[in-house]
Amino acid sequence: MPRVRVHNFTVTVDGFGAGVGQRLEAPFGDGVDGLHDWMFAAMEDKANGKGGIDAGRVGAWEEGIGATIMGRNMFGPVRGPWRDDSWKGWWGDNPPYHHDVFVHTHHPREAFAMEGGTTFHFTDEPVEAVLERALEAAGGQDVIIAGGAATIQQYLRAGLIDELNIVVAPLLAGAGERLFDNVTEAMRNYQVTEMVSSPAATHVRLQRR
Amino acid sequence: MPRVRVHNFTVTVDGFGAGVGQRLEAPFGDGVDGLHDWMFAAMEDKANGKGGIDAGRVGAWEEGIGATIMGRNMFGPVRGPWRDDSWKGWWGDNPPYHHDVFVHTHHPREAFAMEGGTTFHFTDEPVEAVLERALEAAGGQDVIIAGGAATIQQYLRAGLIDELNIVVAPLLAGAGERLFDNVTEAMRNYQVTEMVSSPAATHVRLQRR
Repeated sequence: MPRVRVHNFTVTVDGFGAGVGQRLEAPFGDGVDGLHDWMFAAMEDKANGKGGIDAGRVGAWEEGIGATIMGRNMFGPVRGPWRDDSWKGWWGDNPPYHHDVFVHTHHPREAFAMEGGTTFHFTDEPVEAVLERALEAAGGQDVIIAGGAATIQQYLRAGLIDELNIVVAPLLAGAGERLFDNVTEAMRNYQVTEMVSSPAATHVRLQRR
Repeated sequence: MPRVRVHNFTVTVDGFGAGVGQRLEAPFGDGVDGLHDWMFAAMEDKANGKGGIDAGRVGAWEEGIGATIMGRNMFGPVRGPWRDDSWKGWWGDNPPYHHDVFVHTHHPREAFAMEGGTTFHFTDEPVEAVLERALEAAGGQDVIIAGGAATIQQYLRAGLIDELNIVVAPLLAGAGERLFDNVTEAMRNYQVTEMVSSPAATHVRLQRR
């Protein structure tokens, strides 16, 4: 059975996946500088053949994955109606997904394909329907819920996520978007099955009971 | 200079230091069973001369400490006015403090001494005044802010805590009392200086910048 997974979603010690004021110049908002430092260092270590706690986990988001789902704020800084079709995501001409990516938005626009096999689809359907499309597109492989926090919460509340791999960075934000808000009931269905730290990151795995 | 410290304050992965429904039969409320398992195991390891990440840290709350401050809910399950003076704390005849303990409460009662040198004082003074009394009582040693979350938040907002050593247990509560609520501004004054995990607990040290 294909699984629905979250990987590398990084929060501060006080629980925030993004600070306040997310915008073009600060995609994750203010007060969270360095949130993904562990990830860049781990990717470099992995590329150089080095092992370690972070390097061993950082690539899991692209292993056995056939489709990705994300919220609109993760796709870009534009809020409200699209002014035009010029925004193509944060990731340049060749995004790192190489498969179908479904973007939740109240302002649908036409799908478009990028270099390297990534196609962005825009939808205002409910999470169940979007996941069904993603599983179909994934052709038997797993599906990633990439984020942000609000999108992960929606899928948690609907009971659709099998496994969350979150990362705690040694930072404090004070304010912003909390991963574990609005999921009181949903959390009863999960248990922590792994917790391990490097100096740069604590990895916590949550699995459905 | 004596320092103001927090040690062993334990939260779930989703950030709760206590669940809902704190009461006599469930001092930490519901949904947080096992929150302090790491601590009991570490104390046993320490008593048996075993080392390790948890055993090496679990005793810090009693080293170099001359006074303790806590909130009323940490002292006991009684809410509102004291019905009588029968409640003497959760810790039996010989509490593990062995020094002056200051309990914040809107319902002062007379101080009383227990076996082993612990004296409980009750006060509705502001945090600054209580800390001053605690520092005086500590006679040059450090002061612990023991908890709960609301009490720690008050001292954080007042900028009075030098060092917080918190522990994340591999549990999810879904709801309850969050440590890092109502401290948006205060968090800017702290940085994470250590993060290390055993399978049972992640230890995070926050120090004032």
